[in-house]
Amino acid sequence: MRGADSDGVLFDHCRGSRIGLPEAVFSPGKPWPILLSLLERFQSQPVLFTRLENEIFAQAPADLRQKYDYDPISRTAFAVTQSDQGDFARVAVVSAGSSDAQVAREAARTLFFLGYHQTLYEDSGVAGIWRLTGRLEEINRHEVIIVVAGLDAALASVLGGLTPRPIIAVPTSVGYGLARAGESALASMLVSCSPGVTVMNIDNGYGAACAAARILRLLAR
Amino acid sequence: MRGADSDGVLFDHCRGSRIGLPEAVFSPGKPWPILLSLLERFQSQPVLFTRLENEIFAQAPADLRQKYDYDPISRTAFAVTQSDQGDFARVAVVSAGSSDAQVAREAARTLFFLGYHQTLYEDSGVAGIWRLTGRLEEINRHEVIIVVAGLDAALASVLGGLTPRPIIAVPTSVGYGLARAGESALASMLVSCSPGVTVMNIDNGYGAACAAARILRLLAR
Amino acid sequence: MRGADSDGVLFDHCRGSRIGLPEAVFSPGKPWPILLSLLERFQSQPVLFTRLENEIFAQAPADLRQKYDYDPISRTAFAVTQSDQGDFARVAVVSAGSSDAQVAREAARTLFFLGYHQTLYEDSGVAGIWRLTGRLEEINRHEVIIVVAGLDAALASVLGGLTPRPIIAVPTSVGYGLARAGESALASMLVSCSPGVTVMNIDNGYGAACAAARILRLLAR
Amino acid sequence: MRGADSDGVLFDHCRGSRIGLPEAVFSPGKPWPILLSLLERFQSQPVLFTRLENEIFAQAPADLRQKYDYDPISRTAFAVTQSDQGDFARVAVVSAGSSDAQVAREAARTLFFLGYHQTLYEDSGVAGIWRLTGRLEEINRHEVIIVVAGLDAALASVLGGLTPRPIIAVPTSVGYGLARAGESALASMLVSCSPGVTVMNIDNGYGAACAAARILRLLAR
Amino acid sequence: MRGADSDGVLFDHCRGSRIGLPEAVFSPGKPWPILLSLLERFQSQPVLFTRLENEIFAQAPADLRQKYDYDPISRTAFAVTQSDQGDFARVAVVSAGSSDAQVAREAARTLFFLGYHQTLYEDSGVAGIWRLTGRLEEINRHEVIIVVAGLDAALASVLGGLTPRPIIAVPTSVGYGLARAGESALASMLVSCSPGVTVMNIDNGYGAACAAARILRLLAR
Amino acid sequence: MRGADSDGVLFDHCRGSRIGLPEAVFSPGKPWPILLSLLERFQSQPVLFTRLENEIFAQAPADLRQKYDYDPISRTAFAVTQSDQGDFARVAVVSAGSSDAQVAREAARTLFFLGYHQTLYEDSGVAGIWRLTGRLEEINRHEVIIVVAGLDAALASVLGGLTPRPIIAVPTSVGYGLARAGESALASMLVSCSPGVTVMNIDNGYGAACAAARILRLLAR
Amino acid sequence: MRGADSDGVLFDHCRGSRIGLPEAVFSPGKPWPILLSLLERFQSQPVLFTRLENEIFAQAPADLRQKYDYDPISRTAFAVTQSDQGDFARVAVVSAGSSDAQVAREAARTLFFLGYHQTLYEDSGVAGIWRLTGRLEEINRHEVIIVVAGLDAALASVLGGLTPRPIIAVPTSVGYGLARAGESALASMLVSCSPGVTVMNIDNGYGAACAAARILRLLAR
Amino acid sequence: MRGADSDGVLFDHCRGSRIGLPEAVFSPGKPWPILLSLLERFQSQPVLFTRLENEIFAQAPADLRQKYDYDPISRTAFAVTQSDQGDFARVAVVSAGSSDAQVAREAARTLFFLGYHQTLYEDSGVAGIWRLTGRLEEINRHEVIIVVAGLDAALASVLGGLTPRPIIAVPTSVGYGLARAGESALASMLVSCSPGVTVMNIDNGYGAACAAARILRLLAR
Repeated sequence: MRGADSDGVLFDHCRGSRIGLPEAVFSPGKPWPILLSLLERFQSQPVLFTRLENEIFAQAPADLRQKYDYDPISRTAFAVTQSDQGDFARVAVVSAGSSDAQVAREAARTLFFLGYHQTLYEDSGVAGIWRLTGRLEEINRHEVIIVVAGLDAALASVLGGLTPRPIIAVPTSVGYGLARAGESALASMLVSCSPGVTVMNIDNGYGAACAAARILRLLAR
Repeated sequence: MRGADSDGVLFDHCRGSRIGLPEAVFSPGKPWPILLSLLERFQSQPVLFTRLENEIFAQAPADLRQKYDYDPISRTAFAVTQSDQGDFARVAVVSAGSSDAQVAREAARTLFFLGYHQTLYEDSGVAGIWRLTGRLEEINRHEVIIVVAGLDAALASVLGGLTPRPIIAVPTSVGYGLARAGESALASMLVSCSPGVTVMNIDNGYGAACAAARILRLLAR
Repeated sequence: MRGADSDGVLFDHCRGSRIGLPEAVFSPGKPWPILLSLLERFQSQPVLFTRLENEIFAQAPADLRQKYDYDPISRTAFAVTQSDQGDFARVAVVSAGSSDAQVAREAARTLFFLGYHQTLYEDSGVAGIWRLTGRLEEINRHEVIIVVAGLDAALASVLGGLTPRPIIAVPTSVGYGLARAGESALASMLVSCSPGVTVMNIDNGYGAACAAARILRLLAR
Repeated sequence: MRGADSDGVLFDHCRGSRIGLPEAVFSPGKPWPILLSLLERFQSQPVLFTRLENEIFAQAPADLRQKYDYDPISRTAFAVTQSDQGDFARVAVVSAGSSDAQVAREAARTLFFLGYHQTLYEDSGVAGIWRLTGRLEEINRHEVIIVVAGLDAALASVLGGLTPRPIIAVPTSVGYGLARAGESALASMLVSCSPGVTVMNIDNGYGAACAAARILRLLAR
Repeated sequence: MRGADSDGVLFDHCRGSRIGLPEAVFSPGKPWPILLSLLERFQSQPVLFTRLENEIFAQAPADLRQKYDYDPISRTAFAVTQSDQGDFARVAVVSAGSSDAQVAREAARTLFFLGYHQTLYEDSGVAGIWRLTGRLEEINRHEVIIVVAGLDAALASVLGGLTPRPIIAVPTSVGYGLARAGESALASMLVSCSPGVTVMNIDNGYGAACAAARILRLLAR
Repeated sequence: MRGADSDGVLFDHCRGSRIGLPEAVFSPGKPWPILLSLLERFQSQPVLFTRLENEIFAQAPADLRQKYDYDPISRTAFAVTQSDQGDFARVAVVSAGSSDAQVAREAARTLFFLGYHQTLYEDSGVAGIWRLTGRLEEINRHEVIIVVAGLDAALASVLGGLTPRPIIAVPTSVGYGLARAGESALASMLVSCSPGVTVMNIDNGYGAACAAARILRLLAR
Repeated sequence: MRGADSDGVLFDHCRGSRIGLPEAVFSPGKPWPILLSLLERFQSQPVLFTRLENEIFAQAPADLRQKYDYDPISRTAFAVTQSDQGDFARVAVVSAGSSDAQVAREAARTLFFLGYHQTLYEDSGVAGIWRLTGRLEEINRHEVIIVVAGLDAALASVLGGLTPRPIIAVPTSVGYGLARAGESALASMLVSCSPGVTVMNIDNGYGAACAAARILRLLAR
Repeated sequence: MRGADSDGVLFDHCRGSRIGLPEAVFSPGKPWPILLSLLERFQSQPVLFTRLENEIFAQAPADLRQKYDYDPISRTAFAVTQSDQGDFARVAVVSAGSSDAQVAREAARTLFFLGYHQTLYEDSGVAGIWRLTGRLEEINRHEVIIVVAGLDAALASVLGGLTPRPIIAVPTSVGYGLARAGESALASMLVSCSPGVTVMNIDNGYGAACAAARILRLLAR
């Protein structure tokens, strides 16, 4: 580029490789040539692509796509996972409804990529609280709980009062009007009347999995 | 899905079946295959589809579409209504202008689906207050009043000062600039100087009908 | 006043006397001489004073104070109640915690003033959900339910999924930081995933009682 | 002041003397010595002091106070008015309730100071719309209408639909919760469904009078 | 529509016919069949269509389009203007830059439709203040001034300090980032340090013309 | 209270006793008689009082005060701690500056009350990043890290990129203007470019300690 | 245009030609015919086009496009640069990640257009702080530093504590959820705990270069 | 403090000593004993105390107070200034009105403390633009311009179009209603249509002086 001395390939915005968390590529906004070169570069390395829409991924050549494990709901892709962390630790990903599926599954897939066991409990919202209480004993058998909920996000508070486990709450941008693209769910979680609930950015399933991994790694020492 | 132990069909986010309110499917954001399977599953059950856009519904096979009573303005569909609740109770749906039609009719259609009588009074905004006062006596003959208005939402306050009936106010996202997609109308209704006006989320005609149904069921005991 | 042709006594901002709701005086911001003259004027009339702080009321002469039934927590006062509405109808006022007491009791006292029976269920927040479920059957024996909650306001959603009764939700300004003086609780209630929950302005216990009265009067016809 | 080359008396922030509008002193935040010196300086000049609280004004020596026409509700003071503008033009100041008195009277007093006739119609809110309609013919006999209202500010829309006169709407900071210190009233007025309603800053009665004066001066040419 | 007793044609949201202001149709959000029927109905009546995008208008049959005077920048259309108001009154529409053209011209076209003279002074922003001061004397020869500006909206304050005329300020949604779709310009205008500047909703050129018409009609008496 | 059937003692808003977290009393807003009775009731029980201002606590009788371990900076008090959790686990509380002391020490004191070891690293903000990097190795020897920071909250991101430990970030309400009482720090932490940083409500040192306790209890199994 | 007396070509909104800053055309929102005529008019003049998307520029005739130096990432174009300012002064443009490339390169290209040397340091975010510290000495050899960062914008604070140079910080709209389209990065930069950091509007790389030019011109005197 | 291993004196939040900017103490929120010890410690060192209210400073012993140069309007104090920077560079501090005095003088005093010449031009707001243009030539003789303005902050844009000098704009929290405690002025400055205006946090006169010092030090090399 004339008018700027810098050149060459563009790298990802935030990386955590030195602290043991997944090398990840946040796909939105990246021009296709750059994204394609990254997909080519990482076809035999443990790198996680997040927010990779189906329509975008479909533009890659078929042989390159075959190298990747791609999931269209979580919109994640990777060619190689990180080494397995064993079966000592498990994470329960509990979501309020089917509209939260993208975020819940982004968390689950990131944990899978990192080598951790996880179980997905979808459709556990408080409007039908018997769905949650019926599963409570099983959920409590996991080391860490990720709660994914939009709208009133009441699930985080109710679960926070029923379990002693670390809780990582992820608000989702589900809803319209006063849902305010997830800001109301976020506020509900932050002011939860159940003590010790920690919170991530809206829709940040990837970050919740990283936070869980920071805890699980502690258990593995 | 690899990387997540959960699987199978996705269910709706919020359901109220155990408390006697309509089983409903909120359509936006649902992938078409899932929506199609739900339309197929519920073609002989009393389930209400909301926010089902015309372009989406048109993708269904003609014979399936014929099973449904679909209204393109309210964007609602159902194959079977809930059992008729008799004629003891009636709801007046009063809206400020034609731009509020989608929301007002979502309320009216949900009431119809639930078996309640309703009358729609559109174009009753306060910029021409004689349109409202001329219909007041008739409106007051209904048991419950749903007010649908955007912009300044002055209709809720004016009507609140003219009727002793329960009032359920629905702000709409009509307008531009300071209308702020309905937030200004919502605030106006919440701080109404007429006492006892209750309020729903922006554009939530479905919810207003459910709130009315909670009251009407009380009358039916 | 020189420079303005108007003069004389100042009246209250919003009144609902023509629609059968309580004649009320909203006390904050009123100069003491005006408030005092209103207390004197209404010592044998059914008028409700709201938000009347203890320090303010204490400035009135003892013999005037004795004419009034004053409650320092709800900050309400009246000399005469409206005529009794009979025992056909009852309201449950359910609050999340002790910090919501001012608002919950303002609702209860307004109902008492209007001649309606009410029961107060305090400390029923979802962080200890067994407190709520243990009282559920009793709560459901009331005609209308007023829910008072701050912070995450999860109580409204949980209760909305457990009862078919009309629900009037009042957010409170309890909390700090993201509680945003009640705005987060308000948003949670408006986007509640339980259908048919109606909502009042923050801390508006008086308004919730008026909304309940609109419903109860319908039952009395 | 050491460390700054500037010195001397501080002047008022915004003045409009060259355009014929009142020379005014906005009192809040001004240190008392400066305010006192301004009161002394302008005891025989047509200068308007606004937002001058009673407790502040009371600190001035009695003989200086006697020079001024001070009104504690509008919190305005002046020693000399501008020359009388004759009786060709009149302004109606219509307010919703007694809580709006400070702002409504600030507008009325500023008009008086400028030499214009005005009439104050207080307690005209829409919760009792008959109070407004009963006065409508008289209000319409004024050249310009200033509407002062807080909460839902529905008065501006209703009046805007009933009069062809220029309307200058002033939102007030009355109320709590979603009233948001006047922001909701402001938004309601800006999105009024009655065309041609112009709006001032929250509580800006002084500015509304200036806007009316700009119109009245046109009539006087 | 089944499920709602109301039927027939939908009318416009806000109308001002009884107060002498233009009968107008706000086009956005109206379904095409309804818009088309309105264009057909009003081809020989003085009705103003606002926010009518070129792509929408182009869908009408050629012979219907020929009946209308359509301007693609202001996005206004009318078949017949209201009767001419004579040349006694004139309005200056002053805008800051070319990005404000849509709004400035909506104001100018509405005035033309109403029969009032107007002059358009575009590109008069304060970054080159000599453009404004060079035109000041000519601008001041108009009865009313409409100021159209986005971004910092400094033009309203500067002009407000230079002219004694009534000023109607319209913020525009020009800009990005902190321009916040016109909210920053709106706030700047409302807190203008020049007294007596009145303000309209963001991008509301139509409303500004109506406000000017309210003043001009006063002059015509 | 007349007009409400409920009576008796008021309990705390949010409690976590059934899940093993500290029984706590949030002091602000509680009337003094109630607070005093709680101080008397819990003088030999492991209950933590938070946000108990010095001026309030000083009102208690000297002999009651002597029963309590009170710290005026963290504004916490307790008579008995929970049983010691052993020395297997430690928490580093890292704060940006001295203005964050109240919150950082609330976290440290809550951990002490719960029986966990903690070290306080104050004045570690990034404007002098060598203060942080010089202490990094020592900080990393703790199991969990609580980061307390206001203003730009850059400390959370920088530390998040330097440590693999679980990070619980607490924004503080330090600062003025765009600090927006902690909202800007909160947003910075939620969008931290270091993955896996979890966040608490503004100034919620107590909650951060509870979140740490949820993790440490896992280690102790 | 009928109904408006003004006519002719539309000019750009904001220009700074009299103060020596680049004559610039802000492209978004300009109709294509106007944009095309401006491209034709300025093919031999030093005018900078900003935010000119590739798809838009591609519509110009090939021979006209050849006259221009166009860069698709920064979306800038010019046919002639301003005269070279010599090599006495240099600017370092430091950005946090590849997602900030558009804004960083808009700054770099504007400086090039103005004749100033600049170096681009991309991918220097604080999640990997060694990337920044390793380049610090080299960065400090430049006269002025432009920092471009989104999300938590911690880079501005960290760099502000490490260099004595003038710092111009540009927040970017990178991110989702609480990133709030750059508002959180903007707030972080404004409350930076490193003193003397100046800030531009979100994504305003062009403005940052102009601010740098104001400083560099001072050095050249 | 029992329950926290840390102890000793608390240091200031943000310091810039290593980059050559003033060692400063931000006074608000600091307990008096700590503030007193800092005043004692720095009575012969070049440290600047900011936001030190008169009532607070007056609590210090008279002999300590005598050591300090204290200014009650800017609320700054120092015992020793930094070494004089010579007379090569000068800063113009231009403020809109007398309400901006605290902030303007904080900037001027900080520059004096740092050894730089400055001139204060108060009362230069755009409502009387002749006050500004009459001083323009003199203002332009300074190397750097600090603009201090609240309300519409139009002064920054107007001055930005009239001078080629580096401009550092400081919004002030002057005003009420839509002034929003300085947020509107801040937004106006950030979206200024004059290119190259840099902006500080609301009321941050100290920071503006530091930013000017970063530029002036460049000139001194």
